[in-house]
Amino acid sequence: MGASASIPTCWYNLLADLPFELPPDLPCPSDERPRRVKIPPALIRQELDRRRLIPIPEEVSDRYQQWRPTPLRRARDFERAIGTDCAIYYKYEGGNLSGSHKLTTAVAQAYFYRNAGASCLTVGTGAGQWGTAVAAACGMFGLGCMVYMVRSSYEAKPYRKTMMELLGATVVPSPSDRTVIGRRALATGEVDGTLSLALAEALEDSTDPGTCFATGSGETYTLLHQTVMGLEAAEQLEAIDARVDVIVAALGAGSNLAGLAFPFLGPAFAGARAVRVVSVEPAACPKLTRGRYAYDFTDASGQTPLQKMYTLGHDFAPAAMHAGGLRYHGSAKLIGALRHRGLIDALAVHQTAAFSSAVEFTKAEGILPAPESAHAIRGAVLEAQRADEAGAPQTIVISVSGHGLLDLAAYESYGQGTMVDTTVSSGDIERALANLPDVSGLAGGGVDGS
Amino acid sequence: MGASASIPTCWYNLLADLPFELPPDLPCPSDERPRRVKIPPALIRQELDRRRLIPIPEEVSDRYQQWRPTPLRRARDFERAIGTDCAIYYKYEGGNLSGSHKLTTAVAQAYFYRNAGASCLTVGTGAGQWGTAVAAACGMFGLGCMVYMVRSSYEAKPYRKTMMELLGATVVPSPSDRTVIGRRALATGEVDGTLSLALAEALEDSTDPGTCFATGSGETYTLLHQTVMGLEAAEQLEAIDARVDVIVAALGAGSNLAGLAFPFLGPAFAGARAVRVVSVEPAACPKLTRGRYAYDFTDASGQTPLQKMYTLGHDFAPAAMHAGGLRYHGSAKLIGALRHRGLIDALAVHQTAAFSSAVEFTKAEGILPAPESAHAIRGAVLEAQRADEAGAPQTIVISVSGHGLLDLAAYESYGQGTMVDTTVSSGDIERALANLPDVSGLAGGGVDGS
Repeated sequence: MGASASIPTCWYNLLADLPFELPPDLPCPSDERPRRVKIPPALIRQELDRRRLIPIPEEVSDRYQQWRPTPLRRARDFERAIGTDCAIYYKYEGGNLSGSHKLTTAVAQAYFYRNAGASCLTVGTGAGQWGTAVAAACGMFGLGCMVYMVRSSYEAKPYRKTMMELLGATVVPSPSDRTVIGRRALATGEVDGTLSLALAEALEDSTDPGTCFATGSGETYTLLHQTVMGLEAAEQLEAIDARVDVIVAALGAGSNLAGLAFPFLGPAFAGARAVRVVSVEPAACPKLTRGRYAYDFTDASGQTPLQKMYTLGHDFAPAAMHAGGLRYHGSAKLIGALRHRGLIDALAVHQTAAFSSAVEFTKAEGILPAPESAHAIRGAVLEAQRADEAGAPQTIVISVSGHGLLDLAAYESYGQGTMVDTTVSSGDIERALANLPDVSGLAGGGVDGS
Repeated sequence: MGASASIPTCWYNLLADLPFELPPDLPCPSDERPRRVKIPPALIRQELDRRRLIPIPEEVSDRYQQWRPTPLRRARDFERAIGTDCAIYYKYEGGNLSGSHKLTTAVAQAYFYRNAGASCLTVGTGAGQWGTAVAAACGMFGLGCMVYMVRSSYEAKPYRKTMMELLGATVVPSPSDRTVIGRRALATGEVDGTLSLALAEALEDSTDPGTCFATGSGETYTLLHQTVMGLEAAEQLEAIDARVDVIVAALGAGSNLAGLAFPFLGPAFAGARAVRVVSVEPAACPKLTRGRYAYDFTDASGQTPLQKMYTLGHDFAPAAMHAGGLRYHGSAKLIGALRHRGLIDALAVHQTAAFSSAVEFTKAEGILPAPESAHAIRGAVLEAQRADEAGAPQTIVISVSGHGLLDLAAYESYGQGTMVDTTVSSGDIERALANLPDVSGLAGGGVDGS
């Protein structure tokens, strides 16, 4: 069925159809000199652009041909296995070398950074998918690559490291002793690491003129690049005369969810048929379901500009879990604003429930989902049950954003019954939220359009 | 480019176009009662069928839709990386759950075994690809699955076991203490195991009436099932008006090579344009390049009927190597006969050279090849060099029969420079060949059509 789609020639820009203004970013309130993120002008323009369609450079779409369009498949056997009357489709992004959707923005970013004169990209990575994607993209465009990988994932998934090194990257576990913030974390006994911390280390390590920090999710341009997912899916659904009612995707910071959903959501804002968008997050990192819509830092350093997002607090440290890519403390500002206005829905699920549905999906569909995607599949099962009970079967499209072939240790732990679920206490969330930055004195503070 | 192919409705049967008769199989010369392999009548008919096209049952082609047609891609960046004037395409079979081409025959076999009343399949597996494929196929058709996995691979690739168990199979390392031949091997201190031995254990363990032994390569029907690869490739090449000069594939027993090559070779026998077929084998298990064309057992038990094949001797024990799927002692009888008549060519390569080319391929094409496929890629590099030096660039099609995501330990060993090459001494080969069965007294012996 993937056969029927072509590779989009443009990215879809939700800002063109957004029925409200986004709250502006605010400057970093820290007294310390803020870390300067060197973003190529082309990417900055993408954050501000109001055109609905932004052309994809030819060198980028040439690279996309290596693995795009990705397949959209009907999960008929999975429908039967869970006994639903809903039609379930899934968009599968795991068929490329990096194993996830992340390669789609990595290739675009490496292209724009190279054009801007960069010689090396530094990245923070959770499960290793972002690091692998950037390592591959840097290889394509002749850039060096330095990866800070959350230590809990680094140890649980040694082969991710091998893969990144194979592609020419240098990989270090975070917290590391290479950076001030890493040494500070190690000194306080924090060993497992978090994605926020890895990001902060990578950012700190980008002071050389040619070395730039690249972010895989969260920034508006990463959401933009991922919209090829939804554009392809729309064409693939149209080719078989199917209409989507519900889109379900896991939420790390937001690029996966946005990539599949925005090309459906935008037209709905502009008057086309409504579509329900469901974000699925781990119960151990419940930003949309239990976080606050507030200004926060985008990493754990406390030295970035502030974005208005759903957040658990930038120093919230979720328990180690298998879906490392979902351990980020906040949401992209676009996702946060949509959630705040009730334009997207959110679910939190436990990882054992997610793996239970993922194993059923594997047996039925012949695809082993990444732990992150397992959460989306679980969310789709809950959506299907809800629709069945209401007597109104829906057409559901899931983002299976990555494969789980390098996560078999997690599946083994599930199979052996040793997987543990963590629920966050309200006290932990309140404590982390107490450290939100004070924005009362900042330019633009309070003028947030909400 | 994979987009343009449809899923074949028939398998291609080379026997219809073969310009000679195959030597007949001979009965087992052993005094012991031979192991009875319970093969469904439908599969036996496929061995004897002389129709050119054999219809694929609908339930099987329904399952093929989960992952077929597989992509055929031009390896432009790899061509540039190795500096060749040849056009190189590759057919990629690693995109399914089992990670290799093996799922194509596993699904067909599980279907025919279920129809014949089987309740469980036993298999021997090297790298785990065949075991994973059968585990997945058994799950699809409601059969149990018992896997004997070569111990060296079992230990080097623990996640393969997890995957098979996830799909509902029971997995034991071979040699095991569950069978007579396994206990005999353990008693003589053989621990690493070989594919022949694992096959013999699985065969021994199929004495229950409903339990059947399933073989992944070598038997003529497995070669037949794999021809969907070549049929799809022919359609894909035609769609872009490309003609193939050289087909390169790794040789385990033969189903991978046959699957891609036979649909091109048969028409060539029937008068169409000639195509050069190159079999690539590891220097550590050089059956086509240094073996003998002779009658031999198909496993290490010495209790199977005899087939005329290229063989190193059924008790030849190749050194442990990363391409576990290529450690089989012999060739399929069809491959052997074609080689004997000079209708296919053969190369042996060392594993470090294979990995060197595979790493280059990964960086260029964004596909991590299985160690088996790494051998084919190395073979294609040598073919391209040869064509370039002759000043006659060729169009080469490689079978990338599987992904290497569960073989990253092998890539790590290559990257760290700890990978070892083994060359077999002539003495070792002579010793193993001295144990070939004596066929002088057997019905049909000598009347082999050669």
